[in-house]
Order: sequence, then structure tokens, then C-alpha cells
Amino acid sequence: MSTIREGDQILIITERGKRYLVKVSDGKRFHSSEGFIELGELIGREYGSMVVSNTGSRWRIHRPDLTDLIMHFPRLTQIIYPKDLGFIILHAGVGPGSRVLEAGTGSAVLTAVLANYVRPEGIVYSYDVRQDYLENAKRMLERVGLAEYVILKQRDITSSDVDETGLDAAILDIPEPWRAVETCWKALRPSGRLVSLSPTVEQVVETVEALKEKGFSDVQCVELLLRNMRVKRGMTRPEFLMRAHTTYIVVARRSSRE
Amino acid sequence: MSTIREGDQILIITERGKRYLVKVSDGKRFHSSEGFIELGELIGREYGSMVVSNTGSRWRIHRPDLTDLIMHFPRLTQIIYPKDLGFIILHAGVGPGSRVLEAGTGSAVLTAVLANYVRPEGIVYSYDVRQDYLENAKRMLERVGLAEYVILKQRDITSSDVDETGLDAAILDIPEPWRAVETCWKALRPSGRLVSLSPTVEQVVETVEALKEKGFSDVQCVELLLRNMRVKRGMTRPEFLMRAHTTYIVVARRSSRE
Amino acid sequence: MSTIREGDQILIITERGKRYLVKVSDGKRFHSSEGFIELGELIGREYGSMVVSNTGSRWRIHRPDLTDLIMHFPRLTQIIYPKDLGFIILHAGVGPGSRVLEAGTGSAVLTAVLANYVRPEGIVYSYDVRQDYLENAKRMLERVGLAEYVILKQRDITSSDVDETGLDAAILDIPEPWRAVETCWKALRPSGRLVSLSPTVEQVVETVEALKEKGFSDVQCVELLLRNMRVKRGMTRPEFLMRAHTTYIVVARRSSRE
Amino acid sequence: MSTIREGDQILIITERGKRYLVKVSDGKRFHSSEGFIELGELIGREYGSMVVSNTGSRWRIHRPDLTDLIMHFPRLTQIIYPKDLGFIILHAGVGPGSRVLEAGTGSAVLTAVLANYVRPEGIVYSYDVRQDYLENAKRMLERVGLAEYVILKQRDITSSDVDETGLDAAILDIPEPWRAVETCWKALRPSGRLVSLSPTVEQVVETVEALKEKGFSDVQCVELLLRNMRVKRGMTRPEFLMRAHTTYIVVARRSSRE
Repeated sequence: MSTIREGDQILIITERGKRYLVKVSDGKRFHSSEGFIELGELIGREYGSMVVSNTGSRWRIHRPDLTDLIMHFPRLTQIIYPKDLGFIILHAGVGPGSRVLEAGTGSAVLTAVLANYVRPEGIVYSYDVRQDYLENAKRMLERVGLAEYVILKQRDITSSDVDETGLDAAILDIPEPWRAVETCWKALRPSGRLVSLSPTVEQVVETVEALKEKGFSDVQCVELLLRNMRVKRGMTRPEFLMRAHTTYIVVARRSSRE
Repeated sequence: MSTIREGDQILIITERGKRYLVKVSDGKRFHSSEGFIELGELIGREYGSMVVSNTGSRWRIHRPDLTDLIMHFPRLTQIIYPKDLGFIILHAGVGPGSRVLEAGTGSAVLTAVLANYVRPEGIVYSYDVRQDYLENAKRMLERVGLAEYVILKQRDITSSDVDETGLDAAILDIPEPWRAVETCWKALRPSGRLVSLSPTVEQVVETVEALKEKGFSDVQCVELLLRNMRVKRGMTRPEFLMRAHTTYIVVARRSSRE
Repeated sequence: MSTIREGDQILIITERGKRYLVKVSDGKRFHSSEGFIELGELIGREYGSMVVSNTGSRWRIHRPDLTDLIMHFPRLTQIIYPKDLGFIILHAGVGPGSRVLEAGTGSAVLTAVLANYVRPEGIVYSYDVRQDYLENAKRMLERVGLAEYVILKQRDITSSDVDETGLDAAILDIPEPWRAVETCWKALRPSGRLVSLSPTVEQVVETVEALKEKGFSDVQCVELLLRNMRVKRGMTRPEFLMRAHTTYIVVARRSSRE
Repeated sequence: MSTIREGDQILIITERGKRYLVKVSDGKRFHSSEGFIELGELIGREYGSMVVSNTGSRWRIHRPDLTDLIMHFPRLTQIIYPKDLGFIILHAGVGPGSRVLEAGTGSAVLTAVLANYVRPEGIVYSYDVRQDYLENAKRMLERVGLAEYVILKQRDITSSDVDETGLDAAILDIPEPWRAVETCWKALRPSGRLVSLSPTVEQVVETVEALKEKGFSDVQCVELLLRNMRVKRGMTRPEFLMRAHTTYIVVARRSSRE
């Protein structure tokens, strides 16, 4: 795990900060806009090593974390960004052993993260209406070694119930989450958590109103803004550009209906 | 787990949104500024139920998650807020099985969250200079059932090394993190992650400069802003007040020194 | 203007940062929670001087600007904050000589600022439905010496037209600005600017849709966030709390209807 | 002023939102990436009219405000953005009749705005070390009809005093503003305002410390974040990208030295 081996997935970070996920294969070259390196020459070197491309650009070779891997999944849908992923995991109360509902599977970025954190005893039930998304998810989860913690199902949860009950959490990343609130209520255990992601204010209003009407309490809505700082002694300042919006996050707790 | 039992820790959320963590004890009353309830009357009811205080205030009784529990730990030090906790876990690459260094232990809020996410095979080595903080941490970790995943040690890691090597991640929440960079480099595995938390810009500059000099790469600094939305059909807007700053978060990867 | 005289309005800033607007009157004392001073002893001293209260608290005496004066107007309504006032003036294209419509007058904070910037040739027509607000506005404008640049009128501009035409700008701070769009279109000159202030998203949606339908173009909506930095060598950081929301600002230009 | 005439400066806003400042000249075409229009055909039409380019793109023709004009000045230096300009004007206490010091002149964006708001009795003394910036400023101020309100001087105010005294405000947009604090103190009237702009934290720290030491009080530092909302019924959300940082703004009041 400490040294680079044939067949490893590696993360290359170039001098200009570009990131590439590459499989080490002796005899192959990896080309970027900053030159190329011979992948075979990496074998046996320690992770974190520097290599110099043929054009003199200095690159770092790192062992990728799950966060690196998911950011390189094919983006079939708008993905969920890391700044939001950590918040979701924590506020959904997801941890080792959790039984979690997810809809939709989409690009499987959140699916993989959920799978990672319910290990080894928990399980993620991930629903999507589109078979092609589920097939992509299966491939991606296998690639990152998390397929055994996920059961993928092709179904529209806004028009039919799910098979599971007593779940710890439900995470919705679908266009009309308010139409899945009833299904989630039935699937969740008492005090189970619901987290719903939507980019627009109107979606959030519909969702929050549905949650309050249909047996959820402690309903809150937040958004997270990530601001990068450029840190250099004597020249420290916030970065000039930032992603100003990804998604609103609605959180709630399943309550009794009374 | 679905119904409230004698001895359970419960989360009470009052009509005005106040939160209390209370132990259920038959024959006892719980008093707040919104009246009182008889705790014994909760026994046997489902989590998520509503109760009405003697003054007519409507309260929800929920089963607390780890996030609820840690927010009620005694605040011996400035605590780390949930918005930052999820980001730290994810960007430190911490998951089931991780071996993690933490310094300092402080109020043990982050310690508990780390412990929760390294379960069941991983371990957290948590160092603090103050014996009283460590004793509080021991009590809190026992209370939340996570003590077996943490080894607490009384030591100043800015003046001496730690006992561990090959760790997956190191999390620093100390006043002078730049003085612990060397210790962390020795303790981390190749490509292991370092995360450092500091409230001021000057601390961040010192830390980032030390990391770049002493064998870390992919060094980044961010801050997370959490904005609450007040969602109500026809009256939706951001909340008027927000916590504008908690901490800067520096992340880096251990590299070879060359 | 450089030295404090009997009868001057002065701005007192106490050691803890409290601000008071006070009229200098020989023989009177000014009391705050940080002690008192004799106002007569200020006469003849230079603006910017320090005085020490009877309890040893160090206060600064400044000559107030318009911004200081308006922040001490009676707050009959939600006022517009300085961070938004400057933006409004600039984006409404208001300057010396401008002829401007304002509705509603409210606490007259914006009225006073508009009056200040249209001087000496311009004029502000300020409408409100409430006679008591208009009377307060008259008093406040006289107090700050700007009454001659404002014509106050009691009328509901959402149900009837205004008397003016060919105006350079219209500023709306009313609950249902979309109902005044037609009136503003008639009152504005070609390419004249409309600025509308609303705290909620739903109000903004109604307003923007009405503007696009009824002859306005280049319609934009923004919000301004003001973040205070606590600057102190070695301890610099953003302030922990901030006002996260005051109002959305919609800006548009009057267009031909085609 | 209401209809477009030969020789007018006009603002063209294309269907995709591109903005061009163009001089109307009969017989000439204006080309953009969205096709071309015949400028002569605009003559006699009302401002705010729509024209259709040869490729069917729908453009609006507006009469430019000062804010439009300054955004098209040649950007010889980092310019000051409109979100900051309004704040500066207001917090510098600048209004009709003000006598204001500015350094440096730079691209003359702020110079023009200051000139506009001190009209007709006030004056702006604008200093820069670079003769080429001053020559550009002269051209730009003439173009927007504000040259008579500005006196441009070639001098480094960090190494020598200015000629003026008793000024109402001083605005600094120079790399080392702390070196001009003494000069500003001498030039300002009692309680006169100083506003200083710097992009980095380290500059702000130096400036604030110098101000506190050298006779200024009520020293504050802020930054303004402008967030654009994409407003469309059913699809309203913040824009995905934003300018996260332009400059920190330090404000202070001249005090007596005691």
C-alpha cells in the first residue's frame, strides 16, 4: 500500500494542479498538457513521490482516497460535491451499520460514499428509474470495492413504495422529492432521518411543506458555501472565484403522525 | 429502539426550537422555560411522538443521533461545528478501518465523530496536553459507547513524537499546528492525509508554509459557510443571522521529501 | 466645522464600540452604560477628540456623516442597511440632478440618502400610504437639512399612477412591488432604472416576472453579504457572527414595449 | 436624451447578455459574435428599443449610465467593482460638495465615480505615480464629462505629502497604504474619513495597525460578497459561480492624537 505497484490506480497531480486518475501499466506512457511520464518507472516508488515529465513539469503521485475516486466517476447527472457529501453523511446520522435508502442513484457518487460509511454491517438500498444509471453504478461500485454494501433497484419511488422498512435514513436526490415523502415515512424507523437535495428554492418549498404535513419534524434547510483561501505569506486572500451554489439541503426527522 | 424506555437518553425539541438531552426516569419531571412534562409518561411511546407541556407547549421527543449527543458535550474548549465535522471526515479520508491521529482531544467532539467512523476495525489515537480534558473525553466516549475505538494519551505532540507510524490521517486542532508538522509526517503513511483547524489567518499561513517545506503536497485551505434558509411558502428567505466564521480548514497529503 | 460647538449633533463612540447621536448642550450630562461625560466640556475641542467618562472609559467624539445620522432615525419600518444603500444609489444611476421616484418612504433612511445624492438640482418624489411615516420623514429630512430636495406625497402607487413622468429612476421598497411596475414604467424616461427591494424569494419572483412582461429589460437580482474582519496582528479572522440577509435587490432598465 | 442620435454612446445588450459600448455612426455596422446591426437604423428610435441582428438575435439598445461607462474604461490596473464603489462612496461620506483625495488614480474607475458624486461644488484630487495612468484618466474623465471635477497630480504620496488640507475624505487604492497614513492624516479635516482598499490580509493588517497608531479611530475592515440570483418561476436559485473576492475595505475616521 505504501509503494506503487503494477495495476494500481494512482492520482497524478501536475504542477499546475490538474488531477488525473490513472492505472499503472508498465510500458505505457501517460500524456497531459504538461508533458508525459513513463508509468513503468513509477513501480516500486513510494506514494507521495515526485516525478518530472519530459517537459520538466513536476508532478506528485498519490494514492487516491475515495473522494478522489468518486470525483472521477462519469458524470451522468449533476453530481453531489464533497463539501455537501460530508454534511449529508453526518446529518443523515449515517455510520457503520446504518441501513439507508437512496434515490436516485444518479452518477453513484453519493452511493459510493454512503456505502463506504455503512461498512461493514450496514447496507444501502439505492433506487433509480433509469437502468443505464444503475448499470453504471454497479461498475463504479465494483471499481472502488464497495458493491457488496449496495443493493441497486430499478424503480420510481415517487409512484410506488420501497421494499424496506425500519431504515435509519433516506437520502433523496430526485427532481420532485415531495412526491417521495410518503414512501420515505413508511420506510424509516421512528426518528429516522430524511435528507433531500434540490438546487432550486421552489423545490425546497414544496419539499419542506410536504415534510411538515406528512409526519416529519425538526425540518431545516441549509446551504453550504465553500470558500478557498490562497495562502502565501504576505499575499494571503480568498480565491477570486468560487462555486456559489450547488444544492440546498433539507433535513428532517421522522415523527409520529398526531 | 423504536419506543422510549426507562433510562434512554432522549432529545427533546420544544415548540420554540430549544433542544435538551435528557435521561428518561420514571417519576421525574423535566422543566424548561416552556413548562414541564412527566418523563415517566413517555415510556412506551414511539420515538418522534409529540407531548404537550403543562403550559400547552408542543414538544417532540426524538432518539438522538451522534450529532445530537456531541453538541451536548461539556464545552471545555471551542468545539468543532457539525458543518466542519463532515468535511473533515471526508477530506481526511477517514472511514471504517482507518487508523487516525488526533491532537488535541479538547472537548472530544471530533474524537467521538472520528471514533464513530473508524468503527469497527479502526482506531483513533487522541493526544492532549491536559489531563482534565482527557478525563472528560473518557467519560464522554463511554457515554456514547465509543470508548473502545479511542486510545487517549497525555502528551504535547509539538515537543515530542507520537508512538504510532503508518497512520492514515492526522487531525490537528491545536494553537500552533505548524510545530506538529514534523511529528505528523513521521506518523503518517505515504499519501496519508493531514487536516489542520485554525481560526486565524496568521495560524493558517504558518501551517501552510510549514507543510510545504516539510514534505506535504496538495496543500489547500478552505472555509465553509453554513447558511440557514427559512422556508415557508410565500415567505422564503435566508435567515437574518448566521455564524460567519468557525475555523479555516487546511488539508494536505504526506509526500516523499525530495 | 472642525471644533465642537454648542448645539452640534455629535457622534459618541464608546470604548466598547457603542454609538450615540447626541446634541451638545452646556450644563447637561450624557449617560451611557459606560459612565457619563459633561457635554459642556466638549465645546471648543476638535472633532475626533478623546474624552474619558467618569468611570474611566475612553470615548471618541466625531462629527457625524449622513450615514451616522440615518442609522439613528426612528425605525418605524425595516430599514435599508448601508451595505445596500450604496449599491442602490449606484445601480439606480442616481447622481446630482437626478429626478427620482421612491415608494414607500418608510423610515426615510433611503429617502435621505437619495436626497443627498441628487443635490443640488435634482429631486426625490417619495410616496407612502401612511401619513404618519410621511410626517416622520418630514421631521427627519429637516433634521439632516435635506427637506428641500424631497417632495412627500401620500398615495398608494400600486393602485394609482404618480404625477411625474420622464424620471431617471424609481426605487421600490414596498410589499408588492410587482403591482407598481406599470406605474413605474409610465413615470420613467426611456432607459430609466428601476430598483426593487424585497426580503423573500417569492416577492422577487413575482417582481422579476412582472418586469419582464411589462417593458423592462436587463433584469437582474442580487444580494450583498457584508463580512466584517477582526483585524489584529497575529489574530486576524472574520467576525464570528454576521447579518446573513437583509434584502434581495432587483434592478432593471425601462425598455420600449415590442 | 430619449431618442438615439448620431454620435451617441449607446449600450448594446445582446440576447446572450454580452454588453458593448458603441458610438452611433450612420453608415457603420456593429458586429458581435451574435451577428451585426446597421447603426444608422437606430437613429431616431427610443432608448430601450429592441433591434434584431442579421442572424435573428434580439438586442436591446440602452442609454448608458456612469456605471456602464466606467466598466468599459481600459483596465490598466485591477479595477474596483461596482459592488464596492457604492459602499466606498457612502462610507467615505462623499457627496455633493466634498473635497476628496484619491491615490492612486489607476484606471480612473473610482475617480470618475467620486467626481460624479462631488458635483457640482466639490473636487477630487487624484494622485498617481505613473504619468501614463494620469493621461488615460484625463481622457476617460473627458469622455464621461467629469474632467472639471478632478485635479490629477503625478506624485508618490507614500514618500511625500499632498498639497491639500482640510479634506473631507481620502481613498487609498495603492499597494502599501500604510505608508500613506501620515500624509492622509495631515490632509484630512477633523473626523474626515479614510477608506483603503487591499486584496490581501497582510496588507489589511499593516494598514489597520498603522491607522490605530497614527491618529485614526473607529477603524473597521469589511468585505462585500455579491451573489447573483437566477430568478425564473419554478427554477429560482443562486447562480452557480460568483466572484468570491475583490478587495477588503478598511474604513477609519481621523482623530486627534492623544
